[in-house]
Amino acid sequence: MDDLFVIPLWADLLAVGIGALQGALFAAQFRDRRLDWLGVAIIGIVVGFGGGLLRDLLLNVPLATLQTNWYVLVATGAALLGMLLERVLSRVNPLITVLDALTIGLFGAIGTTKALALGLPEVAAIFVGVLAAVGGSILRDLLLNLPIALMHVGSLYAVAAAAGSGTIAVLLAFDVDVFVAGAVGVAITFGVRMASVLFGWSLPEQ
Amino acid sequence: MDDLFVIPLWADLLAVGIGALQGALFAAQFRDRRLDWLGVAIIGIVVGFGGGLLRDLLLNVPLATLQTNWYVLVATGAALLGMLLERVLSRVNPLITVLDALTIGLFGAIGTTKALALGLPEVAAIFVGVLAAVGGSILRDLLLNLPIALMHVGSLYAVAAAAGSGTIAVLLAFDVDVFVAGAVGVAITFGVRMASVLFGWSLPEQ
Amino acid sequence: MDDLFVIPLWADLLAVGIGALQGALFAAQFRDRRLDWLGVAIIGIVVGFGGGLLRDLLLNVPLATLQTNWYVLVATGAALLGMLLERVLSRVNPLITVLDALTIGLFGAIGTTKALALGLPEVAAIFVGVLAAVGGSILRDLLLNLPIALMHVGSLYAVAAAAGSGTIAVLLAFDVDVFVAGAVGVAITFGVRMASVLFGWSLPEQ
Repeated sequence: MDDLFVIPLWADLLAVGIGALQGALFAAQFRDRRLDWLGVAIIGIVVGFGGGLLRDLLLNVPLATLQTNWYVLVATGAALLGMLLERVLSRVNPLITVLDALTIGLFGAIGTTKALALGLPEVAAIFVGVLAAVGGSILRDLLLNLPIALMHVGSLYAVAAAAGSGTIAVLLAFDVDVFVAGAVGVAITFGVRMASVLFGWSLPEQ
Repeated sequence: MDDLFVIPLWADLLAVGIGALQGALFAAQFRDRRLDWLGVAIIGIVVGFGGGLLRDLLLNVPLATLQTNWYVLVATGAALLGMLLERVLSRVNPLITVLDALTIGLFGAIGTTKALALGLPEVAAIFVGVLAAVGGSILRDLLLNLPIALMHVGSLYAVAAAAGSGTIAVLLAFDVDVFVAGAVGVAITFGVRMASVLFGWSLPEQ
Repeated sequence: MDDLFVIPLWADLLAVGIGALQGALFAAQFRDRRLDWLGVAIIGIVVGFGGGLLRDLLLNVPLATLQTNWYVLVATGAALLGMLLERVLSRVNPLITVLDALTIGLFGAIGTTKALALGLPEVAAIFVGVLAAVGGSILRDLLLNLPIALMHVGSLYAVAAAAGSGTIAVLLAFDVDVFVAGAVGVAITFGVRMASVLFGWSLPEQ
């Protein structure tokens, strides 16, 4: 793996934008909670930023999110777009599910490859990838005072992230190109998550 | 802006002390929650420390709060003082509101100027300032299992912080002295927040 | 105190393992919450990792937890063991209480000594020790949407951690050997916490 590997800015911004969009879509549904516009925007920004912030905090590196103005601008714009879309679309849930699966895939792949590029061992890098993938959703639920979705029967959320991150770590150990490995990882996370929703896959209740 | 600009210790300690004082005043009201003395003191310390901790974590610099013993001592003392005051004063709510508005102003100004001094771009620095301003109150609500006040209609909390932080960034871009800019930022945040309370300003519900 | 003092890997892994074990034991009790296996494992890992993560974030050093694969493996294994044990044992509460008291003792001692070794002043180091001790339990309660146990009457949780961490700081100031000081600190934290449970010690309600 290339020592100088860096996440391309557009890929990271894409993940942040999609995260912020679906975060705002999600928050805008809770009409009974009396969130104001800013509250919805904040949830969008938190979902867009959460994964990357947790990743860089865990890795003890300067937060990518704060090195240029683009992240805050993209996240804010995407959150506002999500808020508008929620008013226009009649059925928003399927869209949230798809974008959310994409978000955990992208953040998991970026987190895992960045951790490996910084020299972390494989299992620790997968841990960082999983936390980067699910971090935004945990912060969202904490801020909205909802039960943490991730913890409960029927989500296959972290499992999907772990499957994708694990695959990336294995592929990179076999010298597969990092973009190929990343794309495969995103596809696996997305596939496991969507399949669990479509076919009702879940882990056994404890 | 002076490259060597640092927050004076007294300014940072003042913000921490006021934050801890109003945090303890706030927590001490919840008699039905069976908080013990320590619980009240912890909330005070969290409100006093939260903004600065989040700021320095985001900036990936050593936490100012831990470089001398003063922060822990001032926050603990102010929290205990707040606990006593709550028993003595008959109407504590207006005092909490005023001190709280001052806290978000001070933490926002310190966070924004510190971020700019470390070379962050303007929008990212405003983001750090806002999070430093509101971080203590978010952590407080999480620890007390309250709905996050910030998220709901009628607070104008983050708006006030963003107005102050944004003003500071603009003033510094025009080479205004950092203490003047900081004072103006604190005044704007304080003013917007107090006006929203006094005149019932709020953002439209989404 | 030796400038080159480092926490031995086995001591840190022991604390993580015991934390993860009791975290999973704790979470597995909530049958009505519909946690799946992964949810229980996550709580175990969070309790095992939480203290060390918060400690290293506060100290702005690379996270020990991520420098080798051992931490993730030990925490995951211990969490799974805890889940199995909960099904086998008829009365699991006393075991949780004992292991929990041991966890806060170990994390408090490791946090305090590491902070002092990095040159933090005494009061700040005690603060880091206390947060390292109680951090896992706070994160656990947040993720399970429970009232933060630490905040309420009758826990003597943070008091026990502070007593142990404070003792360690005093002993080290008198040049006591770090392992002796650490062991005394763990014993004091363990003793205060267990005594508060057995004899119903508590702080006065505010």
